[in-house]
Formats: sequence, structure tokens, C-alpha cells
Amino acid sequence: MTSVESAIPAHLRADRTRPTRKSAAFRPPYPSFSARFAPSVRQVVMAYFGVQHPSETPPPVAEKALARLAGAAGSAHRERARYVDEAGYHTTVEIRYWTDPAEFSAWLADHDFWTAGPASPDAGFFLEVVQPTVRRFETLFSNDRREGIGVAAEGLSGEIREHGYWGGARDRLPLAQTDPLDAAGTVSAGFSGDLVTVVPNGNLCLIRSGQEWTETDGDERRMYLAEVEPVLRAGMDFLRDDGRSVGCYANRYLRVLAEDGGETDKTFGLSWWRSLEDLETWAESHPTHVAIFRAALKYLSTMGPAARLRLYHEVTVAEQGQTRFEYLGCHPGTGLLRAVA
Amino acid sequence: MTSVESAIPAHLRADRTRPTRKSAAFRPPYPSFSARFAPSVRQVVMAYFGVQHPSETPPPVAEKALARLAGAAGSAHRERARYVDEAGYHTTVEIRYWTDPAEFSAWLADHDFWTAGPASPDAGFFLEVVQPTVRRFETLFSNDRREGIGVAAEGLSGEIREHGYWGGARDRLPLAQTDPLDAAGTVSAGFSGDLVTVVPNGNLCLIRSGQEWTETDGDERRMYLAEVEPVLRAGMDFLRDDGRSVGCYANRYLRVLAEDGGETDKTFGLSWWRSLEDLETWAESHPTHVAIFRAALKYLSTMGPAARLRLYHEVTVAEQGQTRFEYLGCHPGTGLLRAVA
Repeated sequence: MTSVESAIPAHLRADRTRPTRKSAAFRPPYPSFSARFAPSVRQVVMAYFGVQHPSETPPPVAEKALARLAGAAGSAHRERARYVDEAGYHTTVEIRYWTDPAEFSAWLADHDFWTAGPASPDAGFFLEVVQPTVRRFETLFSNDRREGIGVAAEGLSGEIREHGYWGGARDRLPLAQTDPLDAAGTVSAGFSGDLVTVVPNGNLCLIRSGQEWTETDGDERRMYLAEVEPVLRAGMDFLRDDGRSVGCYANRYLRVLAEDGGETDKTFGLSWWRSLEDLETWAESHPTHVAIFRAALKYLSTMGPAARLRLYHEVTVAEQGQTRFEYLGCHPGTGLLRAVA
Repeated sequence: MTSVESAIPAHLRADRTRPTRKSAAFRPPYPSFSARFAPSVRQVVMAYFGVQHPSETPPPVAEKALARLAGAAGSAHRERARYVDEAGYHTTVEIRYWTDPAEFSAWLADHDFWTAGPASPDAGFFLEVVQPTVRRFETLFSNDRREGIGVAAEGLSGEIREHGYWGGARDRLPLAQTDPLDAAGTVSAGFSGDLVTVVPNGNLCLIRSGQEWTETDGDERRMYLAEVEPVLRAGMDFLRDDGRSVGCYANRYLRVLAEDGGETDKTFGLSWWRSLEDLETWAESHPTHVAIFRAALKYLSTMGPAARLRLYHEVTVAEQGQTRFEYLGCHPGTGLLRAVA
């Protein structure tokens, strides 16, 4: 029997008042891994700098801001991605990760231009930030290529126990050992000149869930692009357009960009949820995600261990005080603006 | 918001050391109900009297035993069903339910002919009994027509909270409020003349899961028979033939018989599992059950509240001392004979 370890590192283990869903005898049907951070890391920062415009080509105000952001060094990891949103706006997002909130605060004090205004008629800017303590996020990788916040980690765990079943994300979250992570309170908005700020409910949930098909070829590549990706896209479209009915405030389906701005063979879904429970319920029972799950099962059972598709995700459940949502000149369907009642 | 109640009746509620998977805010996507027994009922009996034969027509020894069983009054509920098993044997099962083990013991003392022997070369006989305390089984109905052990109950609950998600069966089981219900120990067999008895591992799990399409007609009937039933049958066949790979010791897919011996528009799956966890893992993640779930979701979303298909199940997790498995002249693939290592 393969040896497995807990996704929760030793220094974050607690006496559970909330047992895992699976017993110690459970063995996952395939291997997966979690990012391992140095025990000195207590809290991380995930910051999404977005710029949106109706035109396909970025207008000068967007180009200029993106160039300035590109020149601002100082985070643990950065990447760019783009998507077209529910209103047809072309949007570029630069994601920045830090493993120390103080470093982020200092950096932001020196680079506070993104949502400083004034608003432009040509482009909207938004900044969405979560700063979870290490007890409030978890990561999952199908292989040894780290993505997202995982790039800022020390390395990877061995094969972990808590995956391959519904509820695995909760069982990997250190705080969920003792806390139900229920949504608390309401969403509110504040207005200051052109800037709209949003304070979400407590235990707001963020998932970034990605796939990379760079190394696939032949039948595997065709099967991913023809049979899996369209089903995934339909689920992403449902969450983007109708997600509020199931507790999803906003969803984006992004293509990762290369250094030169060209498209890579990597995409990810990025969605904000009222609660982890709402995310779980959609994932395990909604027809759009059951279809994704079934397509993925068929793909993986056809390919077996030879599959070269890479999968990962990161899930965060944030306290209200660990978030920052700013929208400058954005259309009203942008991000958490949709969550304001 | 619809008012819901717990599937666990007040007199069986305990301070949970194992929380339910869903919060108090969760509302199931459609109504379901549980059977309610009188608080005086402490333990029930589910007894399966089976007779198998290679011939389609029952040989005289089988006919005679079935007639004698038919004449033996005295249980709270009884019914007959039949199936063809993995070895091609035609099998008739009479199911008997009691709400008092002492009554069953007295009845059996007066009617102990089923597996008394000697073995016949023409037919094999088996008796499979579980006698769970009320903390060790749960029932679920999509409507107000009770089936199985539920017929022996006083009535039905109101709409219950703990259903419509993976893990609902566990959350409905009173003992699972405080007990993980993990499999314990091993399966062993004993031999006495022609009779083989099996003692299963502790926390052996039984599920009876049924469907009735009597009231369906037109498109609904066609959709059930053409799109749902074949997917259900494929899953039943998988469990019957290859179930041991996922912890299923035995599976039967039975057609309920009318009083006159003709077929009704009712079927059910009946399967023995090493543990509730093994059943859960198959149900929520195996391709054969994901396909069943997807077909059912599509059917129910197409039909909406007008659907006239009726669904129910009962799940039992038994202690070793609450079971009785006897096989007389049966082929070695019968029931729990397959579970003996």
C-alpha cells in the first residue's frame, strides 16, 4: 500500500472537532500533492490587478498601466492572463503573490497607481486581494509543476491522503479541522469619488483551478481539446452568467499569457463564492460540474498514468479583514460588484 | 424558505462529535422523507430468503419451499422479487421484515425449514438476515409511498434536511453522529454438513435502493426505460461482476413480483458492502455511478416536479452479532460466499 501523508503540514495540525470525510484506511485513486511552505510563513497575499476595456486592443491608458505594473518588481511570483467577460469586455489580469503581508503593504505603498484614479472612459481598473493565513488556504497539484501561490512555496509534499473525493478541499484546509467555515454577515459597498470598494461577507471563498496541456499530443491533445475543454467551458460560462443562483459571485475563465504576451497552453477558472459550502455543493451535484467531472474521469481512465495533462487548484476561505476589493470605472457586472445586493 | 427537519428523530439525536457535511443553512434541491418508527421500536429485522436454480422454471424442491414460506404468516411486511445472478442462476427472494427481534426468533424457531437441509442438487437455498438497532439504519423516500422496512414504520417524516448531497446517508444514520462506522475485522466461514455460514466483518453495510415507474407514461416512461434504466443496469452489472474491486461483496438487481407472481414496474438494487465508506466512495466517484447520477439528474431536470418516478432506499450498517448468513447447496459465487477470502 502506497504511503501517504496528510495535506496539512505537521505544524498546522490540530485536534480535530470536525473529522475528515474518509477514514485512515482510504487510499486515493491517483496521486496528488500539496505545496509546502516554510513554517515561518504565516500569511500569504494573492493580488489580482485587472484592467478591462470594450476594445480588443488595450487603449493607451491600459497599455501604460500594464507597462508600469510590469516594471514594478518585488513579489514572490507574478503572471498574466486574459479573458473576455460576461459583458464582452477584454480583460487582462496580472496576479502577484507574496508570502509576507508586510512586504505587500510596503510594495503597494510605493505602487498605488492601479486604482488611484481618476477613472478613464476607455478602461476600468480593479484590484482584488486576499491575504489568507496559512490555515485558510490549501493547494492541490496532480504533478510536480507548481502554479499560483504554490510557486512561492518551498516545495511539494509527498502523496497526500485528502483528495479524490468530494469534500477533499475542506479536509485539506487546516482551519476546517475545527471550524465549519460558514458564510457570515453580508456584502457591502463603499464609494469614494470614482472608486467603489466592496467588503464581502466573512468566509468568502476563492478558487483558482487550472489545467495545462503543453505536453499533450496526438490523441490525448485531441481528446482534451474536443471532449474535455468544451464541457469545462460550458461550466465556466454557467458560473459566469448564472452563478449567483448557486452562490458564485463571479467567475472568470482565463488564458495564461507567455512573457511575450502570446497565449500558453494553460487556462484556469477563477471564482469568488459566498462560501466553501456553496462551492462544494455546485461541484458535487450541479449538472454543469457533474458533466465536467464525468468528462475528466473518461479522459483520465482512457489515458491512464500516461496522461500528460496537468491539473492544480488553490482554495482560500478569507476573513473579511483579509480582503480588499477596489473597482475604478468598471462596468457594474465586474467581480464582486455583482455580489452587492 | 421551506421548513425542514432532521432525518434523525428527536429520541435518537445525540451531541455530535461528527458534524453533518452541510450547514444549518443548507436547503436540499428537492424534497425527500424518512420513515418514522414508534419510539418503542429499538431494533428491526430484515430477512432475505433466497432460492436459486439453473433452470428458468423452479424445480419441485424450490416450488415446495416457496409455497411453504408463502403459507408462513407472521411478519410486519413481506414481498417477493427475482433476478438472474452472475452465474446465470434464476433466483427468487422473499423478503420479510419485523420490528422486534424476539418475534423473528420465535417465528424462525417455528419455521426453520429454509436452510435445514439436506442440500438438493436442483436448487440452492440461502438466508441472509440483518437485525440493526434503530441507530444503525436509515431510509429515504422521494414521495409518500413507503417500501421495504419503511412499510413497517408508523409513518413518514416531514421534508428532511440531510439529503441531496454526497454523504447524506451517513448524516441520516443516528449512530454516525458519534461513530465513523469503519469496517472492523475480517470475514470468516463455518461449515456444518451441507450448510455454509458466513460471519462478516463488523460494520458490514447493506443498501436496498429502489425505483418504481408504475405511474409514468408517455415521454417520461420512454425516457426512464430508454435513458435511465440501461445506465442503472450497467452500474448494477459492474457491481455484480466486478464489485469486489471497490468493496462491494455482492450485488443483485431485482424485479419486484406481484401477488400473482407477475412482474411489477418496480426494481431495486440490493448490495452488501465491506463498509459504508466503500459504498460512499463508489457512489460519488466511480464512472458507473457518476453515469447513473448524471442520467438521473437529466431525467429529473427534464421532468421537473411533474416526474412520477418514485425512488427510495434503505441503508444499514450492522454489527457482526446482528447478522446471519446461511448458504445450503448454493454455488460459490452466491452472496457473502464471495466475501470469504
